[in-house]
Amino acid sequence: MRGPGYDAGMPALPPSLDPPRRVLLGPGPSEVPASVLQAMARPTLGHLDPRFLALMDEIREMLRGLFGTANGWTLPMSGTGSAGMETVLVNLLEPGDRVLVGVNGVFGGRIAEAARRVGAEAVEVAGEWGRALDPDDFRRAARAAGGSFRLLALVHAETSTGVLQPMEGWRELADELGALLVADVVTALGGTPVRLDEWGVDAAFAGSQKCLSCPPGLAPVSLSPRAVERLQTRREPVRSWYLDLNLIARYWGGERAYHHTAPVNLLYALHEACRLALAEGLEQRAARHRRLGAELQAGLEGMGLELRVPAGERLPQLTAVAVPDDVADAPVRRFLLEEFGVEIGGGLGPMAGNTWRIGLMGAGCTRANVALVQAGLRAALAAPVRA
Amino acid sequence: MRGPGYDAGMPALPPSLDPPRRVLLGPGPSEVPASVLQAMARPTLGHLDPRFLALMDEIREMLRGLFGTANGWTLPMSGTGSAGMETVLVNLLEPGDRVLVGVNGVFGGRIAEAARRVGAEAVEVAGEWGRALDPDDFRRAARAAGGSFRLLALVHAETSTGVLQPMEGWRELADELGALLVADVVTALGGTPVRLDEWGVDAAFAGSQKCLSCPPGLAPVSLSPRAVERLQTRREPVRSWYLDLNLIARYWGGERAYHHTAPVNLLYALHEACRLALAEGLEQRAARHRRLGAELQAGLEGMGLELRVPAGERLPQLTAVAVPDDVADAPVRRFLLEEFGVEIGGGLGPMAGNTWRIGLMGAGCTRANVALVQAGLRAALAAPVRA
Repeated sequence: MRGPGYDAGMPALPPSLDPPRRVLLGPGPSEVPASVLQAMARPTLGHLDPRFLALMDEIREMLRGLFGTANGWTLPMSGTGSAGMETVLVNLLEPGDRVLVGVNGVFGGRIAEAARRVGAEAVEVAGEWGRALDPDDFRRAARAAGGSFRLLALVHAETSTGVLQPMEGWRELADELGALLVADVVTALGGTPVRLDEWGVDAAFAGSQKCLSCPPGLAPVSLSPRAVERLQTRREPVRSWYLDLNLIARYWGGERAYHHTAPVNLLYALHEACRLALAEGLEQRAARHRRLGAELQAGLEGMGLELRVPAGERLPQLTAVAVPDDVADAPVRRFLLEEFGVEIGGGLGPMAGNTWRIGLMGAGCTRANVALVQAGLRAALAAPVRA
Repeated sequence: MRGPGYDAGMPALPPSLDPPRRVLLGPGPSEVPASVLQAMARPTLGHLDPRFLALMDEIREMLRGLFGTANGWTLPMSGTGSAGMETVLVNLLEPGDRVLVGVNGVFGGRIAEAARRVGAEAVEVAGEWGRALDPDDFRRAARAAGGSFRLLALVHAETSTGVLQPMEGWRELADELGALLVADVVTALGGTPVRLDEWGVDAAFAGSQKCLSCPPGLAPVSLSPRAVERLQTRREPVRSWYLDLNLIARYWGGERAYHHTAPVNLLYALHEACRLALAEGLEQRAARHRRLGAELQAGLEGMGLELRVPAGERLPQLTAVAVPDDVADAPVRRFLLEEFGVEIGGGLGPMAGNTWRIGLMGAGCTRANVALVQAGLRAALAAPVRA
């Protein structure tokens, strides 16, 4: 008896893919420049080819620039941003360790959840969704919970709400707690400034598909010497073989020991995306995001729409907009996609169904797109897509 | 004080990448057809775009054909083949569970190691490297170890040695043990026949970058209804958030709930690679690998080289060759790469330094490449690259 794959009864082949052209103005993936797509389509090299190994070194060097760090342990993990998050937690935590984590959006909650799965205890500091967090609230929560903490974790760029978390005061708190400082910079990297060394962050993770404007599938991470020491003095092996940085560093470092087959072509894309970001200049790039994000946010408020985050705490690259009470969420997004070819995002968690998320990330952050998404929304909010 | 990324002191930008053209005849990544590279470079869609969701369904359907299964839970994980292995183990095992695993090469050992990291106990059945395993040896080992086993795991295509493990008798043994049957088909899928339903395999994992001739970065996995039941009746949550199939199935299934951002462009490539494999026909494709693998193996033996695996137990798509005593491994591989543009692989584990691995996988499995790699080896084995 043969399985379906070897039968005459195979399903008909689908046609070759022909994706429509969209303008990606959601929470990511973002617009990918043509040169990044072209780089990705270059012939595949072996993951131990000397030319590819040289490319890896260049990527690490450029990522250090983007992260604002001199950390030797700076490299892209072979998975999406969530794999980057899990990498940091699974490598730095052992069963019984405690994490103090701010939860003012989906991604803070995700850190807590992933930490628990590693066998750690997560003490959550609940914050209002759409507002930044205050170190003093953490200080009080730590005192109330007692005991020590291995990690102090917060989301610098909360992709679910559009909050830009200021980074002042956290290093001091981490030192008081004797904890390593962990920051989620998934949506920040390549957009708003990331300065790990200045902030005193010990471990950070990002994604390729946000302000770097690279396709999804890679998660740049960076560990400070203090975090590396923690990793190297664990009592137990890292619970994940695939994400074990002790093993992965042997491949990305001088030893070049095979661990897993690197996603070669995606790394081509990341190489080119990093080049474009650094060639623009990180200050200039941040200024572009700030300027156009403010322009969009003013425009939306001018349309009478309410933003989820007060001025001064907003990410320029991701704007959360309240869906007006008399408007249905999904039909508007479908209208934008079908009539304007524009993708924006819906809300997550308690913001599902009542929030739109508009991204101006990397190559997608242009004056033309600021105008386009407003034109689309204006058309959508006219009848007949009102609820 | 500013971090390096925001200083005037940034390192010089590397040039845009310009990978040399190689012929990939190692253990993977393999040759990638132009249409697969082109598919990958199509504009990125959002991971919740209706057109992308339709593409995901087509991929699942084609993967079912390739795996020879009707399993509903058949999908590509967002990581390389090793992530596929870890997915199966972390989802099906709980702390204290036991795995009976055959170790006759690097990848069997890796299963044991990854299982231990999940908190399970791995009972290893050691086999000779370069030989297939016998269910009766497992039966004896299970009896000697006593107790019950959650998983019976073996490597169907051992990429480190080139052994093709026959699949007869394992389902019966798994039933005797009350265990789920797990098979590593990383190097088999799209090359030699994979017939999960006929074999009675409950969980299998593969890689995109072997006989599917897709770039690395995706790991197709498939779970039988029995494995899914096991997953759904766990006592504890899956220890990895990123690889938790309960969550991932909500995205790949009808619910379309966001979990992580799918690696959209890599999935374009997989879609096209699956199309090419199925369009060729799996029987024809297997026959091509068998025919040309045998031709290469006969040719190498004709050159006086010794193969690591006896006839009858060889993978046609991966041939392990003993490095002659008076020849140095690395200079020969470097010569092939530099003079012929041909990549072959070195050995792993105890075969490091004394074994070459030659792959004829997917698009790389051609008569021209059979001739090319032999011509290169003949030239390399002439002076001056002898040790």
